[in-house]
Amino acid sequence: MTDLAIRPATLDDIPAIVDLLADDPLGARRESSDDLAPYLAAYERLAHDPNQRVVVAVREGRVVGTLQLTIIPGLSRRGATRSVIEAVRVHADERGSGLGTRFIRWAVEESRQQGCQLVQLTSDASRTDAHRFYERLGFTASHVGFKLQL
Amino acid sequence: MTDLAIRPATLDDIPAIVDLLADDPLGARRESSDDLAPYLAAYERLAHDPNQRVVVAVREGRVVGTLQLTIIPGLSRRGATRSVIEAVRVHADERGSGLGTRFIRWAVEESRQQGCQLVQLTSDASRTDAHRFYERLGFTASHVGFKLQL
Repeated sequence: MTDLAIRPATLDDIPAIVDLLADDPLGARRESSDDLAPYLAAYERLAHDPNQRVVVAVREGRVVGTLQLTIIPGLSRRGATRSVIEAVRVHADERGSGLGTRFIRWAVEESRQQGCQLVQLTSDASRTDAHRFYERLGFTASHVGFKLQL
Repeated sequence: MTDLAIRPATLDDIPAIVDLLADDPLGARRESSDDLAPYLAAYERLAHDPNQRVVVAVREGRVVGTLQLTIIPGLSRRGATRSVIEAVRVHADERGSGLGTRFIRWAVEESRQQGCQLVQLTSDASRTDAHRFYERLGFTASHVGFKLQL
């Protein structure tokens, strides 16, 4: 396989990112590539926030993955900074290519460089393959994740 | 009972907040009030971050609760902004007083005012009372929360 690059997302990547977000059993109900305006507005907000990193994985000039990493300072655990991984998506063509592993390792290494003592994420209870994947990478399924839609 | 106020934490509240964080079955192992320096450094970082709110609940001039609310913009769910509630602690004297409920309702209302479409939190799998509490407040235990210590 050709080389894969992980780099910050640019405004031009938004259509490809939205396609990745929508190409997912849960995302299909939540996303809409017909109107990119809300995504472009969110990108502007993310781009100006020093605690946010939205990255893409690119192979042969094509966006094949995306994730968001948020750095969260805090008082608990002796003033520990933590990071949160959200919105991980890997293109269907890339499943089994090792991209998921490289992506999460990138996020863990970036968290370390930012001084984080903890990396966390939540995964929908239905994504059992993803749970095994995160456990293989050393994560512990120690918490219950609660959500409230507003 | 006398009136309870929820207000932003100040530097002077840090010793009381650390006592609350430590007075907890899990926090007792993680916190240390002997050296406040890392907490004070973390407070400075939080105070300068417009996406962070660390608040305290005060009754009769005494800090009886704390929580942290983080606003996280994002691309997924049509560019939805979400909030994350962390480090919720209520003083032992206040359990059953309704403070927990008021606190979470405050966080939900603040999230709404900040334009969030989703409020999320994780709770250690061992805190079964907390799980019932969040479900009573309308949260859904839809996710598994993974953590990796660095």
